[in-house]
Amino acid sequence: MAHVRGDEANGPMIITDPQHMHRDVLAARSRGRRVGFVPTMGALHAGHVSLVKRAAAECDDTVVSIFVNPTQFGPGEDFTRYPRTLDADIAAVAGCGVTWIFAPAADAIYPNGWATRVVVDGPARRFEGELRPGHFSGVATVVCRLFMAVPADVAYFGAKDWQQTLVVKRMVRDLGVPVEIAVCPTIREPDGLAMSSRNAYLLADERSRATAIHESLMLAERAWFAGDDIAAIEHAMRSHLAARGVAVDYAAIVDRESLEPLSSPVANAIAIIAGRLGTTRLIDNHPLPTRG
Amino acid sequence: MAHVRGDEANGPMIITDPQHMHRDVLAARSRGRRVGFVPTMGALHAGHVSLVKRAAAECDDTVVSIFVNPTQFGPGEDFTRYPRTLDADIAAVAGCGVTWIFAPAADAIYPNGWATRVVVDGPARRFEGELRPGHFSGVATVVCRLFMAVPADVAYFGAKDWQQTLVVKRMVRDLGVPVEIAVCPTIREPDGLAMSSRNAYLLADERSRATAIHESLMLAERAWFAGDDIAAIEHAMRSHLAARGVAVDYAAIVDRESLEPLSSPVANAIAIIAGRLGTTRLIDNHPLPTRG
Repeated sequence: MAHVRGDEANGPMIITDPQHMHRDVLAARSRGRRVGFVPTMGALHAGHVSLVKRAAAECDDTVVSIFVNPTQFGPGEDFTRYPRTLDADIAAVAGCGVTWIFAPAADAIYPNGWATRVVVDGPARRFEGELRPGHFSGVATVVCRLFMAVPADVAYFGAKDWQQTLVVKRMVRDLGVPVEIAVCPTIREPDGLAMSSRNAYLLADERSRATAIHESLMLAERAWFAGDDIAAIEHAMRSHLAARGVAVDYAAIVDRESLEPLSSPVANAIAIIAGRLGTTRLIDNHPLPTRG
Repeated sequence: MAHVRGDEANGPMIITDPQHMHRDVLAARSRGRRVGFVPTMGALHAGHVSLVKRAAAECDDTVVSIFVNPTQFGPGEDFTRYPRTLDADIAAVAGCGVTWIFAPAADAIYPNGWATRVVVDGPARRFEGELRPGHFSGVATVVCRLFMAVPADVAYFGAKDWQQTLVVKRMVRDLGVPVEIAVCPTIREPDGLAMSSRNAYLLADERSRATAIHESLMLAERAWFAGDDIAAIEHAMRSHLAARGVAVDYAAIVDRESLEPLSSPVANAIAIIAGRLGTTRLIDNHPLPTRG
C-alpha cells in the first residue's frame, strides 16, 4: 500500500479534542489504513523517536499523544517540574511520518466529576507498584482512556519501562481492548544510560555516576552467564550502584512476565533496577538470555 | 433503511467467543448498520424484553448478552443460586429481532491471571455501593469488558437499577468508551412490583408483601406534591415498609444524578428504596417530578 502521510506536505495535524481524534482514526481505518499509536508524556527524546519511526514504518498513519498525566504521579513526585516542551516535541518528530499529534487538555481526559480508575493487580503489585502507590492505576487509567480516544491497530511502548509494559498488556488483555501492544527496545546514550525524559534533571556529577545503572545490568549479565546464583548477582548489582553513589530502590532478577521470583534458574529472567541520584529517580532493565 | 434481522429466518446466532462477537459487530457497523446492545445476566423477564424490543426498534442489529457476572456478587450473596435459564432466555426474545446472543464462558471474560478492575467513585459511593462493597466495581468492570467485545452504537439499561445506570454512564464518560447509554423505564407487574430476576426467589407471602415497595414510592410522590419535607417523606416510606414486614436497607429522597442530598427542595429528585423480604433483597426507585 502506498503510504501517504499527513505530514509530508504540512506537518502533523495537532488535535486536542478526543472525539475529533477518535473520528479521524476511525475514518482512516475505515479506508483500510493501519493506524499506529505512540502514547507519550512529551519531553520527547531519541527513545520516543525510535517508537515513532517504527510506528510510521509499520503503519499507514501514526498518532503521537502528548499528555503529562497527573494521576500517575504521587504526592511529592515530579509532576509539576516534569518538562513541558510541546514545540520542541513537534520539531522532534518532524519528518518521521506522523499524521496526528494528539495533545488533549487535562479536562478533556479527566472531566469535571471524574470518578473512574482502572486498577491492575498482578504485574503491577511489586517494585514500582510498591514504591509508587497509585502510579500504575494512573498509568492503566490514562492508557485505557487514550486507547478509547485513539482506536489504533497497534500501540508502541518502550521496554525501558518494562513493568509498565506488563501492566498495559495485562489491562488490554483483561478488558479486551482491541489493540495490539508492541514493546520496542530501550534506546541508550553512547555510555549506556537509558534515554529518559528524567535524565534532564541530572546535575553533571549525577549524570556521570548514572552510568552505574547500565554497568550493573551488564555486570549482572556476565555473572548470570558465569552461573552465579540470583542472590549473589543481586548483591553485586547493589554493591556497584552503592559504590557509585546511586541510592538503590531495588536491584533484582525476576521472572520477566510476572516480576515474581524466578521459577527457572536459567530462563525467562530479567534484571531490573531503580535508583536515585539526588532528587532524580531512574529505572532500567535488561532481559537475561537463557543460560546453559 | 430496511431492517433485515438475523433472526427472521433462523433465530439469533449464539456467540460465545468475544473476538468473534467483536468482529461481527464491527462488520455490521462497517456496512452502515446501527447496532444496539442489551447486557443482561439472563433470567430474562418482561423488563429485559422491553429493552430488547426498544433496541430492535431503534437499531438495525441487536445483541443481547447473557453473562452471570461473578465479580458483582459479594461473599454470601446469591451468585450460586442466581437463575441460569439460557434456553428459556433464548425463547423469551424469539421474534424480538435479536441478531446475536452473546453468551461467553466465565474464562472468556475473566481469563487466567485476570488482574484488572474498573473502580468508580462518585455515584457509586452511597446506597448499593455502601451495602454491597465491590458490587459496582464488578459491574463497571464487566460492562467495560462487554463494551470492548460488543462495540455497539448504543447500549440499553433499565431504570430499575438506577444507581447502576449512573455508574455505567460515569464510567463510559470518564473512560471515553464510544457508546451511547439509553436508560429505559422500569417495567412493573400489574400490582406495581418492579420486574426483577430476583422476584423468582419470593415465597408467596413475601410476594404479596413486596408491593409495599412500590406503594412506598407512590406514597412518597403524593407527599412530595403535598409539600412535605424530605425527612418526613423518608420516615413515611420506612414506616410503610416496616408495617408490611419489609426490612429497610434504605428509603431515601436524593438528587437523581449524584445520589447526594437534594440541593433543591423542588427539582431533580428521586425516591430510592432497598428492602429485604426473607432472603430476597429488592430495589426500586421513582423519579419525582419538579414540584411547584
